[in-house]
Amino acid sequence: MESMRNEDTIAAVATAPGVGGIAVVRVSGAEARTIVGRLWHGRQLDDMKSHTVRYGQITTIEGEPLDDVVLTYYQGPRSFTGEDTIEIACHGSSWIQRELILQLVRAGARPAEPGEFTQRAFINGRLDLAQAEGVADLISAGSRMAHRMAQRQANGQFSAHLGALREQLVEFASLLELELDFSEEEVEFADRERLRNLADEIMATLTRLKRSYATGKAFKEGIPVVIAGCPNAGKSTLLNQLLEEDRALVSDIPGTTRDTIEERCEIDGTLFRFIDTAGLRSTDDRVEQMGIERTEEKIRRAAIVLWVIDPTSDTAEQQRQEAQRWQRELPDVRFIILVNKSDLVATKETASEQEEKEQVEQEQGEKETGVAELHISAHRGDGVEELKRVMTKEIRQEFDPESDIMLTNARHYASIERAIESLGRAREALETQLSADFVAQDVRETLHHLGTLTGTITTPDLLASIFSHFCIGK
Amino acid sequence: MESMRNEDTIAAVATAPGVGGIAVVRVSGAEARTIVGRLWHGRQLDDMKSHTVRYGQITTIEGEPLDDVVLTYYQGPRSFTGEDTIEIACHGSSWIQRELILQLVRAGARPAEPGEFTQRAFINGRLDLAQAEGVADLISAGSRMAHRMAQRQANGQFSAHLGALREQLVEFASLLELELDFSEEEVEFADRERLRNLADEIMATLTRLKRSYATGKAFKEGIPVVIAGCPNAGKSTLLNQLLEEDRALVSDIPGTTRDTIEERCEIDGTLFRFIDTAGLRSTDDRVEQMGIERTEEKIRRAAIVLWVIDPTSDTAEQQRQEAQRWQRELPDVRFIILVNKSDLVATKETASEQEEKEQVEQEQGEKETGVAELHISAHRGDGVEELKRVMTKEIRQEFDPESDIMLTNARHYASIERAIESLGRAREALETQLSADFVAQDVRETLHHLGTLTGTITTPDLLASIFSHFCIGK
Repeated sequence: MESMRNEDTIAAVATAPGVGGIAVVRVSGAEARTIVGRLWHGRQLDDMKSHTVRYGQITTIEGEPLDDVVLTYYQGPRSFTGEDTIEIACHGSSWIQRELILQLVRAGARPAEPGEFTQRAFINGRLDLAQAEGVADLISAGSRMAHRMAQRQANGQFSAHLGALREQLVEFASLLELELDFSEEEVEFADRERLRNLADEIMATLTRLKRSYATGKAFKEGIPVVIAGCPNAGKSTLLNQLLEEDRALVSDIPGTTRDTIEERCEIDGTLFRFIDTAGLRSTDDRVEQMGIERTEEKIRRAAIVLWVIDPTSDTAEQQRQEAQRWQRELPDVRFIILVNKSDLVATKETASEQEEKEQVEQEQGEKETGVAELHISAHRGDGVEELKRVMTKEIRQEFDPESDIMLTNARHYASIERAIESLGRAREALETQLSADFVAQDVRETLHHLGTLTGTITTPDLLASIFSHFCIGK
Repeated sequence: MESMRNEDTIAAVATAPGVGGIAVVRVSGAEARTIVGRLWHGRQLDDMKSHTVRYGQITTIEGEPLDDVVLTYYQGPRSFTGEDTIEIACHGSSWIQRELILQLVRAGARPAEPGEFTQRAFINGRLDLAQAEGVADLISAGSRMAHRMAQRQANGQFSAHLGALREQLVEFASLLELELDFSEEEVEFADRERLRNLADEIMATLTRLKRSYATGKAFKEGIPVVIAGCPNAGKSTLLNQLLEEDRALVSDIPGTTRDTIEERCEIDGTLFRFIDTAGLRSTDDRVEQMGIERTEEKIRRAAIVLWVIDPTSDTAEQQRQEAQRWQRELPDVRFIILVNKSDLVATKETASEQEEKEQVEQEQGEKETGVAELHISAHRGDGVEELKRVMTKEIRQEFDPESDIMLTNARHYASIERAIESLGRAREALETQLSADFVAQDVRETLHHLGTLTGTITTPDLLASIFSHFCIGK
């Protein structure tokens, strides 16, 4: 990062692109008030107090009226960036937004680069790096769970958690370094047993964080739920039932392959990505076989597979066995057998009798095969609420975004993976009683990787790559 | 309008829909501070002064953290709506925006309807109707000229202009009404001669306003410029030249017919809508003939037609004559003949000699046929800047959005048309010396139509229809 670049005053539209009732343009830097003053017709800005707003007119630099606006002034360091900041709320036409930026540039501002406001907040010590990344996640969060994870990160909980681990390790590292200074005398300042225990503890935490990534990512992007089963088992009807109550939130994601349909929908705060697949059946037809292979690929990548069975079909029992075979092959994927068309096969039972029966069958099912069974009627919607409950419970079993600190960021994942690797070597060196310099080297490396997570350690490239993924105006 | 509805507190996202760095949610009504207070964790809002901002946390109604936000408080009547208003600047994820509105509703607010904030501003006397409509135009303005026209309207210049006319007429109306009270005595309080003059003056202004509508609408939506001529005359090359310097602002508008392409581009503050057409030539081919008919239809609706001629073609003179024929047929459309390929036919002349020659030809051209001629090279770009200058001058000849008050709104056009009609009858009644009650009736009607323009006279239906065209949050 060129330090020069942080001395100028930057400007960008901070609200969503496009036309709205109002738009907000943010100007940050030492010259914010002077630059805006050049376009301002209203009570002069010199005496404006921090955290107050003022109504007036923005003109072009030549004095032609541009728009009636409301200014908000934040005196540094009491602002998001830590610098003097003025926010201009103008009418939300795309023309005004463009023209206002143009005039600010003519008055001496520079158009901000993506993430530059947040980058300045980081440089001025208002946020650490993981928090800054949390801000980006907050902005893109599409469900309550994704929001919770981002919030925890933006609030610094993730950093605090990692920071505590790192601090303990720093202490040991300094003791190890001390030994190196006295290396000729073969003293051991650092208690090897305590270091081993600490390494184990940190390793356990890092490993759990690493494990949380797949779930964290799924919560962020939508839990992949594959709906599989024979043709005409009622898969698409089930999909419509699952989406119905959230129809407003449903969006069509064009299938990546011709034969699968993806739809997203938020259920109880969790974003699910339902993947409706082509029916599975033995076939000699080459094209159909390829469709089935694609379905199988989707199953392997799913978090949950809803295996829909038609109990009125001759092959119902075979279908059930196939689900059980899949579950044994893929222990990390959660299979749920849905015995559909309960409205056809159980019309004479009362609802409560049926529920009781389901409960028993579900327990039996799990006992015998490890695959839970639910009776539903995709057509009438019976059992669909229960299915939603089971799915949301299922997915929050190991990691719960409401309470756990989870990894959601690919960069963090890579750093943690490297930290685990070097910490593993340090532990091995301790086990084999290698001399302090080997251990110290690996501990130092572990510290480095943990440091890059919160930005204690940064490089220009790292910062550039992180902030370039932000939107402009943030 | 149910007056009840204006007593509750409304909330909506005021910034553009979608994801941005920040979003602003507006809450307006007597309960704004109480309702937001139910979701607020921070320094209490009771002592918050108008026009100040405060940083704090918004939670759900149950107290779960939702987002860190900045509140701005506007105490009524010193706000846009004239009511107590709080604006909440939150992180710009679509999830937070949705959730914040949801929680505000749970806390007692009602989701605002389209245009409801502006409607309240109107009801509370902060804006008149034409100004309110100007706000909507401001938000959708896509060029400097469209912006200027909307600004003039939102600032009340349009209303002031009409209001002054209306006031003079009101005075006469009351004198006429007085005569009616004394109708048995045959007195004339209102000077018929002065009334005739006033009616003439108002009629002239209304007629000019009415005439300005076509231009105003064109400035708002883009001046339609048809590029016509023989196949291979260089029409598409010219289009690319015209668009080149503004490529960033160019958008492809899929042609309404298969054979024309529309592209918009702002030149010197004016939005042009260039329509590239199929080449015109005599043909017996039925399908091609249909394409040509469509081109001719576009020509009839254009403001400007750029008639491109290939001087190297045998039919160059015929092409020129055809343009002249069109110009005679359509006096309201401005034809400009562009003699293309000047790089091929005039390679040996110096630039200045060529310019001089063009000047002469242009003048001659206009003298003989009424159609201006310009020599250009669409390929090299020669003469294209001059063409742009001619077009922008041409279009601002009768009405200039920079200085004239212009009609841009279909509702205003309809009201003015009706006002002209009734004022016409009033004048006729004056001419034929009909008694005061006939004249008074027509003057009253004229006043009514002028009154609906600024909202002096409103009906619930009228208001509903106007504000339903606004975006939500404005």
